[in-house]
Amino acid sequence: MFEYLTAGESHGPRLTAIIKSLPAGLKIELDEINEQLYRRQQGYGRGGRMKIESDKVIINSGLRHKKTLGSPLSMTVENKDWQNWLEIMAPDGEKGEAVEALTNPRPGHADLPGALKYNQLDLRNILERASARETAARTAVGAVARQFLNELDINIYSHVVQIGDLKSKNWGQLKAETPERFDSEKARAEYFAELDKTPLRCGDSQKTAEMIELIDSWKENGDSVGGVFEIVVTGVPVGIGSHVHWDLKLESKLAAQLMGLQAIKGVEIGAGFKGASMPGSEVHDQIYYDQEKGFFRCTNQAGGIEGGMSNGEEIVIRLAMKPIPTLAKALETADLISKEKRTAAKERSDVCAVPAASIVGEAITASVLAESCSSKFGGDSMEEIRRNYESYLEYLSNF
Amino acid sequence: MFEYLTAGESHGPRLTAIIKSLPAGLKIELDEINEQLYRRQQGYGRGGRMKIESDKVIINSGLRHKKTLGSPLSMTVENKDWQNWLEIMAPDGEKGEAVEALTNPRPGHADLPGALKYNQLDLRNILERASARETAARTAVGAVARQFLNELDINIYSHVVQIGDLKSKNWGQLKAETPERFDSEKARAEYFAELDKTPLRCGDSQKTAEMIELIDSWKENGDSVGGVFEIVVTGVPVGIGSHVHWDLKLESKLAAQLMGLQAIKGVEIGAGFKGASMPGSEVHDQIYYDQEKGFFRCTNQAGGIEGGMSNGEEIVIRLAMKPIPTLAKALETADLISKEKRTAAKERSDVCAVPAASIVGEAITASVLAESCSSKFGGDSMEEIRRNYESYLEYLSNF
Amino acid sequence: MFEYLTAGESHGPRLTAIIKSLPAGLKIELDEINEQLYRRQQGYGRGGRMKIESDKVIINSGLRHKKTLGSPLSMTVENKDWQNWLEIMAPDGEKGEAVEALTNPRPGHADLPGALKYNQLDLRNILERASARETAARTAVGAVARQFLNELDINIYSHVVQIGDLKSKNWGQLKAETPERFDSEKARAEYFAELDKTPLRCGDSQKTAEMIELIDSWKENGDSVGGVFEIVVTGVPVGIGSHVHWDLKLESKLAAQLMGLQAIKGVEIGAGFKGASMPGSEVHDQIYYDQEKGFFRCTNQAGGIEGGMSNGEEIVIRLAMKPIPTLAKALETADLISKEKRTAAKERSDVCAVPAASIVGEAITASVLAESCSSKFGGDSMEEIRRNYESYLEYLSNF
Amino acid sequence: MFEYLTAGESHGPRLTAIIKSLPAGLKIELDEINEQLYRRQQGYGRGGRMKIESDKVIINSGLRHKKTLGSPLSMTVENKDWQNWLEIMAPDGEKGEAVEALTNPRPGHADLPGALKYNQLDLRNILERASARETAARTAVGAVARQFLNELDINIYSHVVQIGDLKSKNWGQLKAETPERFDSEKARAEYFAELDKTPLRCGDSQKTAEMIELIDSWKENGDSVGGVFEIVVTGVPVGIGSHVHWDLKLESKLAAQLMGLQAIKGVEIGAGFKGASMPGSEVHDQIYYDQEKGFFRCTNQAGGIEGGMSNGEEIVIRLAMKPIPTLAKALETADLISKEKRTAAKERSDVCAVPAASIVGEAITASVLAESCSSKFGGDSMEEIRRNYESYLEYLSNF
Repeated sequence: MFEYLTAGESHGPRLTAIIKSLPAGLKIELDEINEQLYRRQQGYGRGGRMKIESDKVIINSGLRHKKTLGSPLSMTVENKDWQNWLEIMAPDGEKGEAVEALTNPRPGHADLPGALKYNQLDLRNILERASARETAARTAVGAVARQFLNELDINIYSHVVQIGDLKSKNWGQLKAETPERFDSEKARAEYFAELDKTPLRCGDSQKTAEMIELIDSWKENGDSVGGVFEIVVTGVPVGIGSHVHWDLKLESKLAAQLMGLQAIKGVEIGAGFKGASMPGSEVHDQIYYDQEKGFFRCTNQAGGIEGGMSNGEEIVIRLAMKPIPTLAKALETADLISKEKRTAAKERSDVCAVPAASIVGEAITASVLAESCSSKFGGDSMEEIRRNYESYLEYLSNF
Repeated sequence: MFEYLTAGESHGPRLTAIIKSLPAGLKIELDEINEQLYRRQQGYGRGGRMKIESDKVIINSGLRHKKTLGSPLSMTVENKDWQNWLEIMAPDGEKGEAVEALTNPRPGHADLPGALKYNQLDLRNILERASARETAARTAVGAVARQFLNELDINIYSHVVQIGDLKSKNWGQLKAETPERFDSEKARAEYFAELDKTPLRCGDSQKTAEMIELIDSWKENGDSVGGVFEIVVTGVPVGIGSHVHWDLKLESKLAAQLMGLQAIKGVEIGAGFKGASMPGSEVHDQIYYDQEKGFFRCTNQAGGIEGGMSNGEEIVIRLAMKPIPTLAKALETADLISKEKRTAAKERSDVCAVPAASIVGEAITASVLAESCSSKFGGDSMEEIRRNYESYLEYLSNF
Repeated sequence: MFEYLTAGESHGPRLTAIIKSLPAGLKIELDEINEQLYRRQQGYGRGGRMKIESDKVIINSGLRHKKTLGSPLSMTVENKDWQNWLEIMAPDGEKGEAVEALTNPRPGHADLPGALKYNQLDLRNILERASARETAARTAVGAVARQFLNELDINIYSHVVQIGDLKSKNWGQLKAETPERFDSEKARAEYFAELDKTPLRCGDSQKTAEMIELIDSWKENGDSVGGVFEIVVTGVPVGIGSHVHWDLKLESKLAAQLMGLQAIKGVEIGAGFKGASMPGSEVHDQIYYDQEKGFFRCTNQAGGIEGGMSNGEEIVIRLAMKPIPTLAKALETADLISKEKRTAAKERSDVCAVPAASIVGEAITASVLAESCSSKFGGDSMEEIRRNYESYLEYLSNF
Repeated sequence: MFEYLTAGESHGPRLTAIIKSLPAGLKIELDEINEQLYRRQQGYGRGGRMKIESDKVIINSGLRHKKTLGSPLSMTVENKDWQNWLEIMAPDGEKGEAVEALTNPRPGHADLPGALKYNQLDLRNILERASARETAARTAVGAVARQFLNELDINIYSHVVQIGDLKSKNWGQLKAETPERFDSEKARAEYFAELDKTPLRCGDSQKTAEMIELIDSWKENGDSVGGVFEIVVTGVPVGIGSHVHWDLKLESKLAAQLMGLQAIKGVEIGAGFKGASMPGSEVHDQIYYDQEKGFFRCTNQAGGIEGGMSNGEEIVIRLAMKPIPTLAKALETADLISKEKRTAAKERSDVCAVPAASIVGEAITASVLAESCSSKFGGDSMEEIRRNYESYLEYLSNF
């Protein structure tokens, strides 16, 4: 369950996604999908396109009277801009004379390796699919997965912790500082909800101001800006994923899908790279038991995953996003056909997309967890899944 | 092709691996598999077990007179220590009275989440499979993949670039310093081959001495040591992987399998996390053309992967390994049954396994690339694959 | 390549299909897809719905100026009838009071097992997806696969060889009678093309008349009619599929997808069940060699597949289709809720859908072979695939 | 769960199988695996090899004190004959001068298509893997799956219903004749258990005598004999499999794996091909309700599967097996190298393997159902699976 495919070019008619199978009887609110699509389009540093688009999902199948049928859920997100691309991107029409090939590959993009791999003389044939526009489809898929996870009391949050070389506190540091502040799910949810009202989805307003300054100054310089965001998942019960084979490990599944997000060049879980420099006695989270809480930890260097499985603590993942490779500043390149020196083509683009990427990161994480949870708990209807889920929780509490 | 399963507990009779299908007519030298198994067992900081084992592979199928048949290749690595575990780990015998259950879960291990997930009252039932002993099987698989890649002139290297908090230069820095030193494959191969003779697989002998000191002092303190290693792949042609769907992206495939290696908590490609702090104009590798070389780059911040595909440059991956979670120093834990406070069980173990992990990292990388290359080039015999491969290279040189 | 998902309910807004990846540069004619959709809607014995629908495909992605981009190809087929089902099948709206639940499960359908599995109190929530309407999406997918196969000179045909208990000659018998008649691809293509103009896609006009009579008389009796159709594939080179693992066997792949076609209850290849009663010396196709033809056979009891692989002869598959389970005649059933005795609900339906199923069978066969061929030949662009394909054919001719 | 790979050549050192993951805490009796291996080696018409082998399974991993650990279960079956093939089949040694290539491809075997596909000049490199010897590994896998299914009260039986052109009554006919005779699971189990003591696994002793005569007479003539066997599964609850996508349909999964059994050329479910000739009103199983039994049927033309799902009735599958393609009688062929006319090579072989194939068919069916059931019920330990399973049964009984 929750396997999916997405399709769609950036300036083609529309994006499509099919989720192969879902539990039946899951209530899906379109507003919640549209809300996630909206969140993905926000953030300081986005280009003009975000104003053109205001993505809305259309459901083609799998849902009836707001409830899933168990059958494939097909969703469409129209490309609002399509009317301006009818000829250039026509699926069926012959190529018109006015349609010019793009031949200046942009460094850092799929342009050049894609053209060589697929034997294309027009880079548009590659960049249209490689574009991050595709992530709108994955966001819609994730928004469905999220509504499923909510039924299991699993919540997915994110925030931006670095823009360019400016870092703000990560989740572990925030919690260590004022643990009581984040003690309840309500408090956590509120904290993260507030971030959606900020320009960069970063909780430190002082730092945010500096980050905006950095974005502005780099932008002025014709440059683009990367950063780091963090995903926090609460409510995952112990035992999601498995140690028995690499492709069943929860961190493998997460790393695979998240590394597959455009412009991501690094993934770390819990202490991550920093943990590599610490002595073992500081990096492993000691185990305690309390009759009410069961087994628990007081630290979370593991980021909620030990030996391929969730351990009942919060799952914490950090992703490094490189600066967007489409710059106002001219990068050198060579023409695909003539091989002559050129400056890279500039598609309309954002300067900084880290806040947007954090929303997509949430969506992807939701997809992974929905798949992993439904394989653990089995079941074909929400009633059955909830029954199996609750009997597992009860078993845990009696362990 | 090159899909595989591994099986085996750490103190069970033997490890098994099956590679589902391979090209026929690939020459496989057992010595080269055993050489990789040997390399995995070296490195300063290993525990006593490495002396017990001296792994040798047994081929059960798929090979005849040193040539693959295309059929599943089954391999076995005997656990030399098995004779001491006949009763404790007996697959078939009833549990003897002398066999005691392990009930003190070790923080940082699969022990506790595994016991809860699988409903086990003896932690041995989890830790035996979660153990890094399993990586011997993956190393054997990778050693087969490597012999395939060699036929396509693809080479896989690695070195250790950090032990504890001590860092040595990474590949990019080394090349930037003395580019002429690593100008030929022969030179690169020799450089990395030399590392196998050093205690930590790190090229900086001065730094190595300090690292050894750190290992010794942490060990004395009952602690364990993590680090970072880097994998370098040369000779990968442009166009391996794809931008069209997340699970076809080369970085996704690599991150998934590498994050599935025991104790790995972070993966980064090229500039990785550092790239997130750099301006776009410095992080994207400008494109040049030369009649002899074709399209090429002078920098490699992308780590050889753009838009989900190899771009013809070296592939560079860094992995963060947490310190081994089995420590001499007592970590606090709670008994699985009585829930009383305990100190974690100490299985015989290493203090630092970063050099060993770097060898397994090479093997895993080889497996991923062998699968990706064979899906790009098709073919069922080595002659056919080579034919398809060479015609692609020729096409590239005429592009 | 050529992996796909379909989505869509029978009376929902539309069907969707996504083909995950394809070779780039494949020319796709929408007319040819629509032609296959049209063929699927023909045939004596179809119900009223076929007149409502006249399916046309819409391409959402993956195609530009009639050429594939290598990226996911998304297709939509609108349900023309949707306007009459806006409330009943609304994905998003609340269930109106006028919407009545179906509670009389039809024997032979997914209705009852589906309702129990997915915990549904309205059978429509099951039957909408289980309906053969879904095969329009698979037909569109197959029509794309067919255009790919045409580039490799692989052709897929079908005919009906049994309606009810009336049998006409199968392909082997026809060829045995007048071998010279079907000696060229042109002759074969013409023979099968002519069938599209006949009411039942059966080549024996005398028998067709009897079959129509049977359909009419059973229909009058409120009954429905099944039958058998045969798929014939020409031009498949030797070596597609593999003997090394069951799921790589060509017959496994074909049987899986074809058995997954609605109402199919039997699959046989070549002599099939009849071959089980023959002595070995008559059932195995002796091997001959001719300088021009290479290795060849004079019989084809194997149906073109030996040991999991195509053997260079025509692939011949027969499928048994049960009568459509929606009958005018009342079948007994029990109410899903009250459990009281009922007669089964009658959705608008066909009396005989064997000719239509034969078209879908062609489409499915095309999908399987496109996937199998592209995994054998590798490559990402049509030029690369053709290059690899031709070098294999050349290798074969020099063997 | 229950995904697996097998490996091994017919005259190589050993067969290997790995089941990727299983529920933990499943009791596995080696005797029961060996019992299935023994059953596979029986039956009138087997060749000399059956006397050489007396297969015993060795467990390499995944089991401890007779209970599964959840980790990969690796099994080995030694080839007893291996000592005689040390040089001919040496994985590692250079090819000795005494080792002669086989170059006469046998019609009906993988020999020729395999040699061409994999570019082999020695047919042994193909036939060793294509041999039905591999089915010993699948039988061992199935024997594990069967022990899992027994825990869910699912039973798998088979009998031979046709040898050559001699047919005995199939399960439906037997039950129709004397329904009271097979009214309890005990009675059914006893009936099928008795068959293991008969020479052909056929319940009709009169017919068996004739079948033996047929085998003897065809054998005398240098010929081989095929037949049909039937698999009967009892106890499968309603709702295994799914209607939502073709590859989730239970009949697709069964057909795929069963068609992948050596020499199988036809699969039918329930009425199968015969159902194609019947009117709809006779072919669909009317639905009744009884407070104790729930929904039930009085007929079983559907063979227990409707719309891709089990419907709670017995699952009934018939498989057509072609005569073994290795004959004493000379079939014509052409030399692989010289292309000259030859008679086909004769490996030591059976005359009739239908009874043996029926045992393998049981094993394969068990594997499919174990996978399908564990994906429906989720869970990682037997306790959890049983809990989920029973709560589903309870839900069904309250529906």
